[in-house]
Amino acid sequence: MKCALPSNNQNHTEDWSKTLYEINEKALKLESEGKKIIRLNIGDPDLATPNEIIESAYAAMKKGKTKYSSSYGETKLREKLAEIHGVSTDNVVITAGSKWGVFATMYLLLKEGGNVIVPTPYWTAYDLTAKSIGAQTKLLRTEFDDRWRIDLEKLDDLIDKETRLIILNNPNNPTSKVMDPDVLDGIVEIANDRHIPILSDEVYGTISFVKTKSILEYKGNHILSNGFSKTFTMTGWRLGYIIAERELVDRITRLNQITINNVPVFIQEAGLKALELQQQLSAKIKDEYQERARMASEILKTSFEFTEPEAPFYVFPRKRGLDSEEFTLNLLDRGVAVAPGTAFGDYREHFRISLTAPREQIKVGLNKICEALE
Amino acid sequence: MKCALPSNNQNHTEDWSKTLYEINEKALKLESEGKKIIRLNIGDPDLATPNEIIESAYAAMKKGKTKYSSSYGETKLREKLAEIHGVSTDNVVITAGSKWGVFATMYLLLKEGGNVIVPTPYWTAYDLTAKSIGAQTKLLRTEFDDRWRIDLEKLDDLIDKETRLIILNNPNNPTSKVMDPDVLDGIVEIANDRHIPILSDEVYGTISFVKTKSILEYKGNHILSNGFSKTFTMTGWRLGYIIAERELVDRITRLNQITINNVPVFIQEAGLKALELQQQLSAKIKDEYQERARMASEILKTSFEFTEPEAPFYVFPRKRGLDSEEFTLNLLDRGVAVAPGTAFGDYREHFRISLTAPREQIKVGLNKICEALE
Repeated sequence: MKCALPSNNQNHTEDWSKTLYEINEKALKLESEGKKIIRLNIGDPDLATPNEIIESAYAAMKKGKTKYSSSYGETKLREKLAEIHGVSTDNVVITAGSKWGVFATMYLLLKEGGNVIVPTPYWTAYDLTAKSIGAQTKLLRTEFDDRWRIDLEKLDDLIDKETRLIILNNPNNPTSKVMDPDVLDGIVEIANDRHIPILSDEVYGTISFVKTKSILEYKGNHILSNGFSKTFTMTGWRLGYIIAERELVDRITRLNQITINNVPVFIQEAGLKALELQQQLSAKIKDEYQERARMASEILKTSFEFTEPEAPFYVFPRKRGLDSEEFTLNLLDRGVAVAPGTAFGDYREHFRISLTAPREQIKVGLNKICEALE
Repeated sequence: MKCALPSNNQNHTEDWSKTLYEINEKALKLESEGKKIIRLNIGDPDLATPNEIIESAYAAMKKGKTKYSSSYGETKLREKLAEIHGVSTDNVVITAGSKWGVFATMYLLLKEGGNVIVPTPYWTAYDLTAKSIGAQTKLLRTEFDDRWRIDLEKLDDLIDKETRLIILNNPNNPTSKVMDPDVLDGIVEIANDRHIPILSDEVYGTISFVKTKSILEYKGNHILSNGFSKTFTMTGWRLGYIIAERELVDRITRLNQITINNVPVFIQEAGLKALELQQQLSAKIKDEYQERARMASEILKTSFEFTEPEAPFYVFPRKRGLDSEEFTLNLLDRGVAVAPGTAFGDYREHFRISLTAPREQIKVGLNKICEALE
């Protein structure tokens, strides 16, 4: 146990969620009392879904694309995604959001037991999902002082004969750090040596500001999870996909058959339209977030330490001695909602700012955050 | 073991699904060769989703209802459903189709083990879901000769200390039989005595041709699963709901948070519009299916035995000595697709006709079915 955190017990994780939940509840209460809250606490973009995408969904509904359909997803959408990622159509299955893809993969690989390795700071859903399924989560801590670099030796030590999966989130939520290619090379080498599949959640990858190496560039039975939410501001549409070896794609499809059945076909048609317009749409979205990240870094750098965002939407600043839960609650009284670092693992001196509000609001919010330290 | 079938092993069930799958594949192949197939094999209505519902979804998208939202579902929709069913809003959670509601309930109640009692003939998904979760299915056989009546003594004998759930499907797929109120009274009494919750799938209930008693009319911690697919011809929209005690609603919501997150808000708005127009829309849909059922009974009665449909969409005829898998495959060569009885349990002499095609096609299809016997 020299390198890794022990798996958190149920109560500990519930506390983290509780904090996030309490902050959201408190924000809603303050808003209902007429107070204006700048919401920098969740990763839901203020930007609207592009109109071309909406019109495409509407046209599909009117054409009667409102029936049951394949649990693999629509062939045209799978073909387009296969073309983009350089895989075969058989390797693509459409999911009801990338969250469903992550759950389905974890469920199928972990329901018979075993453990999953998750680097921290992490997106809470990975750990909550493992707990729901009854699998053990082994946390692999990374540190700001190491620029969030995964220690390969620590990873190798954590793997045991019960390990069924390694989850990577690249670019990472909450740090917006893109993994160094040499580190990723090393992780894949270890995973391949030990015959452990990697589930790589790359939902921020398409609009990252720096080149992001995908898990699909490697040999091995690894799994890509991706979605349309972030790339096309389609969070509420619940459209994602998994790319994996055919056997797992077939198993996810059989799970789809007894759960979600299929993503509405009109939503898949909207997704196809989004992909056709990808260059134009995602370039615009990326530019906006890059400008927000630049602005945020400029304001925050005098008061906090952080790694510069290399992808949308987050900054994960640290202040030595900070109690981020207390800080977050106090900040709410000043009219700004952010997420405490403890929601992403044991990171009490950090908090997460989500740059998903109009620039003017972000600027006001960030200045209030800096003032709150004084 | 005097009364009930033993639980089917994995292979047996896979064979059943395989048959359904093979028939669908063969139908697709024949269609691709230019042959016209009358598709009476799946419960997806030929009728289009009413235009008011489509327009409501479009208006909601344009208003920006494309963001993340509550994993409980939209408050307005939950309130409307609570009002319709005479429960509190806290007892309602919105699901991504009724299938997801069934899976979520079974997952939460059975993932620690135990068994679930399912009357046959049944909708295959119940058994496939139990197998996926690792729970045992105890089948409670009903017979055409008893007019598909559940034997209360058999049910009582089947319950043991590992029983966690009883599933009812009322009206039933594939028989379209509505449960006699006195039988339902008896089932609930047994369930309450033995402290076993009932999951009542009433997805065909709103448009049944005879009065259907709902599980919500009884005391006890029972669970209603329902959906918009059948009532409003919204199969591909994936919108359903669970009504249950608050604790289970909260647990399903927490499962939603790590899986589907939320049903797209614009789809929930469309569902709300559907409920507002319910009397007008569902009366029209019910009338059409009742007329189809009348016509089907008229044609089939000279060649087959069956109970008259009391709800959409199915007839489940029997012919003594029939091998329904062989019959179904031969029928395909005559241009008609139906589902073999073995897809719904051990009912080799039965097959299921789905009256989800225009009346003229149904008439031609049914006459071909009768001819195929000769």
